[in-house]
Amino acid sequence: MNPTACILVIGNEILSGRTQDVNVQYIARRLAELGISLMEVRVIPDIRDTIINTVCDVRARFDHVFTTGGIGPTHDDITAPCIAEAFGVPWTIHPESFRLLEAHFSPGEFNAARQRMATLPEGAVPIRNPVSVAPGFSIGNVHVMAGVPRIMRAMFEELAPGLKRGTPVTSISWYALGLYEGTLADGLSNIQSQYGQVDLGSYPFRRPDGRRGVALVSKGLDPDIVRQAAGAVHDLIETLGFTPVEGEPPA
Amino acid sequence: MNPTACILVIGNEILSGRTQDVNVQYIARRLAELGISLMEVRVIPDIRDTIINTVCDVRARFDHVFTTGGIGPTHDDITAPCIAEAFGVPWTIHPESFRLLEAHFSPGEFNAARQRMATLPEGAVPIRNPVSVAPGFSIGNVHVMAGVPRIMRAMFEELAPGLKRGTPVTSISWYALGLYEGTLADGLSNIQSQYGQVDLGSYPFRRPDGRRGVALVSKGLDPDIVRQAAGAVHDLIETLGFTPVEGEPPA
Repeated sequence: MNPTACILVIGNEILSGRTQDVNVQYIARRLAELGISLMEVRVIPDIRDTIINTVCDVRARFDHVFTTGGIGPTHDDITAPCIAEAFGVPWTIHPESFRLLEAHFSPGEFNAARQRMATLPEGAVPIRNPVSVAPGFSIGNVHVMAGVPRIMRAMFEELAPGLKRGTPVTSISWYALGLYEGTLADGLSNIQSQYGQVDLGSYPFRRPDGRRGVALVSKGLDPDIVRQAAGAVHDLIETLGFTPVEGEPPA
Repeated sequence: MNPTACILVIGNEILSGRTQDVNVQYIARRLAELGISLMEVRVIPDIRDTIINTVCDVRARFDHVFTTGGIGPTHDDITAPCIAEAFGVPWTIHPESFRLLEAHFSPGEFNAARQRMATLPEGAVPIRNPVSVAPGFSIGNVHVMAGVPRIMRAMFEELAPGLKRGTPVTSISWYALGLYEGTLADGLSNIQSQYGQVDLGSYPFRRPDGRRGVALVSKGLDPDIVRQAAGAVHDLIETLGFTPVEGEPPA
């Protein structure tokens, strides 16, 4: 069994529709490569009790929890003190992070607001931020990252080598133009019954030029069995009189 | 108090990173316009027990639940029977939807897989699908929509006029180039303390040309108070020696 994960997106700006989240897709793809099963994503507001309760809930249920958002210098950045509260530890200056940030800013610029970014739950291990210095951190199985995508990606890549991982997901996609889900559903269901370990997904698409079709994705942990299932998908498409093309349909 | 809402995104394709979700942002923006407070989003896999348990949990906690995904004709489309299970009602052919779909397909094409799309929880009210006929449905406070964005949007707009709504959110944004969060954090925190009913958000940005800055969003239900808070934000930016520009920073 691969280790499991949950992503917590912390931020009113996603719930208000102001900001289109792009971090979930990045983390999801990387976790699949690392053999970590992403089981749930939650988006929650910048509300103290909601953050604390949600962290306590999901950290008990999943091997890894990744959070994004709420670790900047402003009043609405409350993720770090809430994580401290969830773990029942003080939220205190982290001396090494303090020195790094102090050195980064010009004299007089390292004000109280910026010092908050060097304040971590006691016992947390900082995650280096090669973009803008202010660190993320890990405590227990919870990994706290920035919401700004460029910084989040850098922090995730700092974390990745040390994560407990499993068997990477093997994924093979075939698509066919002009083929609809209703036509192939029965055949696909038969293949799914034959290959219980493979996750067979069916995704209709419509290209900007109006041409439609369906993409069929075979995923699983055993590469041989995924290849066999994907071979059966290929043959099903041909049997129905359409042309299977390997990969994802071009946008 | 405005009514509350939760979005459930049901689909392995989001958790695997195959698909970038764009439905959440659309629904979030429309809910803000309708005066419905989006409090949580969850992305969950196509697993029967997870869907049933999550629906039972969130429908008790929020006034509205919107689901996307899993209502097509293939074996991985299990949302409708799971919702029936969550409500403890049978999953049965809905005669009117059956007739509409039967009329839509050519003779012989309306096979068993497609008939599943006319099968709804008993007592559900169909949501018209002007794009591809197969309906969504509402049962109790749960609104079940397609995952394909074009169809989801059409279904949401069919639903919108009948939703219990509240006071629309008023939102005013100012941004400033060259201004950083650490510089304005103290002043912003003071404004937040003065305007407890306003949600003040601070969002750093970086334009493709490398120029950076910060966007400051004032949101709330009382337009006058939001305007006052946004005026204070404008003055804070000027006091710090930067030029406030109304709106969101250009991408």
